[in-house]
Amino acid sequence: MTRIYIDKLPEPPYYAVIFSSKRSQNEKAYRDSINDMLTLAAEQPGYLGTERARDPDGFGITVSYWSTLEAFTAWSQIAETFIARASGKEKWFDFYELRITRVERAFSMGRPR
Amino acid sequence: MTRIYIDKLPEPPYYAVIFSSKRSQNEKAYRDSINDMLTLAAEQPGYLGTERARDPDGFGITVSYWSTLEAFTAWSQIAETFIARASGKEKWFDFYELRITRVERAFSMGRPR
Repeated sequence: MTRIYIDKLPEPPYYAVIFSSKRSQNEKAYRDSINDMLTLAAEQPGYLGTERARDPDGFGITVSYWSTLEAFTAWSQIAETFIARASGKEKWFDFYELRITRVERAFSMGRPR
Repeated sequence: MTRIYIDKLPEPPYYAVIFSSKRSQNEKAYRDSINDMLTLAAEQPGYLGTERARDPDGFGITVSYWSTLEAFTAWSQIAETFIARASGKEKWFDFYELRITRVERAFSMGRPR
């Protein structure tokens, strides 16, 4: 279970970036780079946390949370440079979709770990 | 890979409901009921699609997409009745979090299947 800094989430509104992807065969390169990216994200102003889950067939959903749209935009520019340097996203994913969303309401049940 | 009706997504704005959960031990009951719920969701006005991924340890993210907030709200009332009848959400999840978000921008790479 991957939930990073997720206990810090404030009351809405804040921003959630939904990244849906099908991983390519090149799993090792992907995994190393994504971990580096998450480490880098955690250093950014306005970063609130990340959670992700992935099916055994390689389809996964990663949601990162940001205090403002500006915080995510600043991060996305750093991420693009990182991805370009790490030899190109085309090699990591068969496809991906990125959706920038504004969290309006939130509910929970039970105690997140 | 679970992506249901996801090819029908329109241009933003639309709504994304992010459901993060840790599944309880009662896996069979959960699985049957969730499949019934997704079948029911697909019949609702304003339903655009669902995607979900789950780690082997039971942590998963399900995102359902809706044309309007009203469409999701109407569905959530049906879903609550369904869950109550299907013997209580507490038995399916160790915890869950639900976030209602408004999709503001979307990008993609490659061809979703």
